[in-house]
Amino acid sequence: MTSTFHAVHQIARPHGLPTAADFAFVEEPLPAVAPGTALVENILLSVDPYMREAMDAEWELNTPLEGRSLGRVVESRDPALAVGDLVFHRAGWRTHALVSTAEGARALPRHEGVPLSAWLGLLGGTGLSAYVGLAKVARLRAGETVFVSAAAGGVGSAVGQLARLMGAGRVVGSAGSAAKVRHLVDDLGFDAAFDYHDGPVAGQLATAAPDGIDVYFDNVGGDHLEGAIAAMRPHGRIAWCGAVAQYNSTEPPPAPRNLYDVVEKSIRLEGFLVRNNRHLQGEWEDFLVPHIRAGRVVQDETVVDGFEGIVEAFRGMLQGRNTGKMLVRVTP
Amino acid sequence: MTSTFHAVHQIARPHGLPTAADFAFVEEPLPAVAPGTALVENILLSVDPYMREAMDAEWELNTPLEGRSLGRVVESRDPALAVGDLVFHRAGWRTHALVSTAEGARALPRHEGVPLSAWLGLLGGTGLSAYVGLAKVARLRAGETVFVSAAAGGVGSAVGQLARLMGAGRVVGSAGSAAKVRHLVDDLGFDAAFDYHDGPVAGQLATAAPDGIDVYFDNVGGDHLEGAIAAMRPHGRIAWCGAVAQYNSTEPPPAPRNLYDVVEKSIRLEGFLVRNNRHLQGEWEDFLVPHIRAGRVVQDETVVDGFEGIVEAFRGMLQGRNTGKMLVRVTP
Repeated sequence: MTSTFHAVHQIARPHGLPTAADFAFVEEPLPAVAPGTALVENILLSVDPYMREAMDAEWELNTPLEGRSLGRVVESRDPALAVGDLVFHRAGWRTHALVSTAEGARALPRHEGVPLSAWLGLLGGTGLSAYVGLAKVARLRAGETVFVSAAAGGVGSAVGQLARLMGAGRVVGSAGSAAKVRHLVDDLGFDAAFDYHDGPVAGQLATAAPDGIDVYFDNVGGDHLEGAIAAMRPHGRIAWCGAVAQYNSTEPPPAPRNLYDVVEKSIRLEGFLVRNNRHLQGEWEDFLVPHIRAGRVVQDETVVDGFEGIVEAFRGMLQGRNTGKMLVRVTP
Repeated sequence: MTSTFHAVHQIARPHGLPTAADFAFVEEPLPAVAPGTALVENILLSVDPYMREAMDAEWELNTPLEGRSLGRVVESRDPALAVGDLVFHRAGWRTHALVSTAEGARALPRHEGVPLSAWLGLLGGTGLSAYVGLAKVARLRAGETVFVSAAAGGVGSAVGQLARLMGAGRVVGSAGSAAKVRHLVDDLGFDAAFDYHDGPVAGQLATAAPDGIDVYFDNVGGDHLEGAIAAMRPHGRIAWCGAVAQYNSTEPPPAPRNLYDVVEKSIRLEGFLVRNNRHLQGEWEDFLVPHIRAGRVVQDETVVDGFEGIVEAFRGMLQGRNTGKMLVRVTP
């Protein structure tokens, strides 16, 4: 076994879109396995929109970054983890990590027919975001029309598929390229989709959902939020999950000029953070695993091979170069 | 009995604040009392913020305007109304009206110790707005801190008092003059209040509610909404009832620049219209009547005497010259 590991440190606070110069690849000796911990060799790492915001202030410089990760236990002094176990943990951006079930690491159940990467996507925080937003915040009902922005991203593609499983009458998505739009309709079962570069959101949404929308799952804010409010039927709900379009901007985005329609249409606009909803993980797995095994949902993902590609994978995700969940494969 | 009545017609679409020239006082013959209708001599008329918006397009020109009203039956061919009954109806802005229980007119129950004007204020749509917003939309819990804007207005003063009855830990209001601020604290039981002319809302709210707010009952939008979002604790709720500050403006108000904090703080922003919640009227009366009779709430009102004062009363209400509900007394 190797005696060192590689990790990415953030060495500067990015201004707008991060650059390679904001990060450093660092090689360090493997840490000692203290009682209650286990050493994990990482297999898959997740890069996510929320990380951009954490880089502004929350995360310390010159230490390994964090992120949802999957690894295999290579040495263990944690009684709940055995060598060979597959483990979900949050010590990301590194090839090896010292983890501990006391601090949230979790041996994964083996479900036949469930790909490993699903634990970082549909069964991870990405899918849980979709579930919380649609089922708990928006409280989607069968027959309703759902619109989701950034629909070809990790959360967005999960939202579209989950809406279908929950009996939505019509599912509409927006994305940033013609190829992604085709992917949504051809591969992910969206009823309609559009490229937001092709014209104002409000106008395209009026075409894609001519009878209006009941639920908007907002991943981007800005123009999309304004267009969704304009298209919304009375008593519509907006589950606001994040604003990837905003993380890179140094100015606050324009707030919707039609916000007052929230009153006129009795709209509910509700923000949520998946980290406040971890208690729903078991419920989500119980719902989703049978659908994955039956092939009724697709783990939509873009996988970058090799740890050395993680910074570019992260930058690419922020620029929308992925479809579905963006992952980095550390170990083949 | 007189053979004619007086009514106010809207004769032009106002631009910004309505002027006297937008209205005409018209004298017409009393209508014939057809089967199923009753003629009512009006006693009290309500002028309300929502009317300003209805004047832009919804209301027809050159016909009597509408509004919540109380009158006494002088002739009846409606089996559910007897001569002498006190009736709540919506044929406002006139001295006499033809009403019908089939179209929503309602003989009022006689509760000893309940002033007649309460049926246009605390027990009417004004109080019902406060109840729906606090109890059903914001779902206020005992011990929480409530902030209400336009707190010296009809809805606002009801919100402040209802918050107290519901066990709020701290009740804070904003108003447009030093006299109103004193009235809120001295007469209506607010814990703190401020004049929004004295400085930015966010700063004054931070002083008035140093530990933040849990619930914001929004009557105005704009800067107040932005300040409330800034002061809001995680999982706070905003019940958005209307935007009196906006009805007179020809530009949309600036949307809050910190709207994205709705996500970061898991805030729920929900608009509502009292007209969608009329089914709660009985529940509201059951709750409130005992409190009125026990003197635990004050019907806060400004009464203008004489039908000829209604246009100025309406204009005054839009400019905040009233405290509490603005009413016009037609008959002594």
